[in-house]
Amino acid sequence: MTDVRYLLLAEGFSADPHYGKTARGVLRYRRDDVVAILDSTRAGEVDDGVPVVGSVNDALCFNPTTALVGVATQGGRFPPEWIEILKSCIAKGLDIENGLHVFLADDPLLAELAARYKVELRDLRRPPSDLSTATGANLQVPGTIVLTVGSDCAIGKMTVSLELDREARSRGLRSIFVPTGQTGIAIAGWGIAVDAVVSDFIAGAAERLVVEGSERGGELLWVEGQGAILHPVYSGVTLGLYHGSVPHLLVLCHEAGATEIEGAGGGPHPIPPLRELVELHERLALPVRPAKVVAVALNTRRLSEDDARAALAAATAETGLPADDPVRFGAARLVNAVLGMG
Amino acid sequence: MTDVRYLLLAEGFSADPHYGKTARGVLRYRRDDVVAILDSTRAGEVDDGVPVVGSVNDALCFNPTTALVGVATQGGRFPPEWIEILKSCIAKGLDIENGLHVFLADDPLLAELAARYKVELRDLRRPPSDLSTATGANLQVPGTIVLTVGSDCAIGKMTVSLELDREARSRGLRSIFVPTGQTGIAIAGWGIAVDAVVSDFIAGAAERLVVEGSERGGELLWVEGQGAILHPVYSGVTLGLYHGSVPHLLVLCHEAGATEIEGAGGGPHPIPPLRELVELHERLALPVRPAKVVAVALNTRRLSEDDARAALAAATAETGLPADDPVRFGAARLVNAVLGMG
Repeated sequence: MTDVRYLLLAEGFSADPHYGKTARGVLRYRRDDVVAILDSTRAGEVDDGVPVVGSVNDALCFNPTTALVGVATQGGRFPPEWIEILKSCIAKGLDIENGLHVFLADDPLLAELAARYKVELRDLRRPPSDLSTATGANLQVPGTIVLTVGSDCAIGKMTVSLELDREARSRGLRSIFVPTGQTGIAIAGWGIAVDAVVSDFIAGAAERLVVEGSERGGELLWVEGQGAILHPVYSGVTLGLYHGSVPHLLVLCHEAGATEIEGAGGGPHPIPPLRELVELHERLALPVRPAKVVAVALNTRRLSEDDARAALAAATAETGLPADDPVRFGAARLVNAVLGMG
Repeated sequence: MTDVRYLLLAEGFSADPHYGKTARGVLRYRRDDVVAILDSTRAGEVDDGVPVVGSVNDALCFNPTTALVGVATQGGRFPPEWIEILKSCIAKGLDIENGLHVFLADDPLLAELAARYKVELRDLRRPPSDLSTATGANLQVPGTIVLTVGSDCAIGKMTVSLELDREARSRGLRSIFVPTGQTGIAIAGWGIAVDAVVSDFIAGAAERLVVEGSERGGELLWVEGQGAILHPVYSGVTLGLYHGSVPHLLVLCHEAGATEIEGAGGGPHPIPPLRELVELHERLALPVRPAKVVAVALNTRRLSEDDARAALAAATAETGLPADDPVRFGAARLVNAVLGMG
């Protein structure tokens, strides 16, 4: 992975924490590998030290090797205007990594073009071809499995897992981040997008991930959560991942102040109180592997520091659990909670 | 559908309620369309009026038009010995309907053979190609949506939905069975196997099914349940179907006396008390569409009649809900409960 130099494709969404979450995640956790961001709506800006360009041509002076699709669209389809960008990347000799549901390598036109220009089309969400149903091997994994769960999508479950993993590693623990979605895979370089597998195999995919995380040397496995247990669109993935990854411990993630699930039709879809979410998640654990919520991770990006600290205190008062914003205030407190030192 | 004459392929499992559940379901609800059953382990027997034969050749005198794969295997793969049976069916000019995960039409050898003999390979589990995420259109469906949920797989959720639909139709109600799995699809002639869609689209598939059930004239929609909410392998499908079908009412299905989920590795996987399952399901309803469990459907096939009646009384005492075995004692009581006449 050390030779990869990314051009992040994020047209229109490079600053959007929801639709641009892959771009934001890669920028945060793999910034050294990113040489430019493509977003004509912000061309000329510099984002966290990385230049934003308006076209593929303008990016070439930064010598990218690979274009990474940095947006997530609902349903995972490609907007038509993107095809032109992708063709342009291929014609300039860039490999493409794509985390959307639609697989680039299955597009005859793009595949033909890629063959002609000798570039690789890597579809991060393409499931392993030999997936099957869960077998129970997950329950044999030694060590401690920690899953992030949350009140909504795109509120920071992956970020929390990454921050806590980084903190645990900094303490010398054999800790590993277990990626379950396209951004996590782009950051860590392995994983399965559990939302892209055949439904019957969700738990089987999650099982394989914790087994592999253990084989990669992890004794403390931070499984990236997906969706939300009461999300009208994605809850199936959430529960299948929960049961297939058989966590011992859960960290409940929530965006401070959010009261409704966003982006789901037919709403409003209110978010229940944190206390209820804690109890609901614990009751949904498999009897064979009881799981406890040990901490609350609050995303306080929209609050002042004073308000953030008040929100953390309120979350603790409501749930009786340690609460912190690991991005804002560091991950030490949450890692302590997971290690039973909270 | 009136011209279809089925040869039920159920080699080794024609009497098995679990692995042979497609065969059993089609025999129960579409028996007039079945001319023979293939199961060499029972050749010469007569099953509920239908002859059991030992080979495809022996079935030809009954003039089948279509061979229906009547077994379900975990993971949905084809045992190798089956390929020979399928090739034999094709060579005799039979169309094939298949509900397993592996698609026959994608097998180059079988597809080539089917083209040569001019027969059709219909993969019942193949999802519509234009599926996407749920939109909220499910919440606009008029009428009453009733989902069967259960304590385990293969305990009779589909059967309960079919029996209650039949009873409702006999009362002149505009009632429809909404198929969500291969057997239901084989019986009803439409539907989507929700366990075969991409995980992100489970709720979207369920949404499409209730919308279609309504468009087909249903004012009372009986959605076939799948899996179980605490099933270590299939719970993701269960919850996605629950949230995507947005039921108003739930019927909780349970096999009387069962205490553990069967066939899942790494166990034991105990089944919680019925009262807890009722509460857990109600708490998992989307806030925008609260759902109540209105009745318990007990599968009492392993009990004497006296013991069955005692089990029903115990279920009512535990849950405070009407309880009945619709296969054994008729569906009237459960339909009354759903209609608020219980």
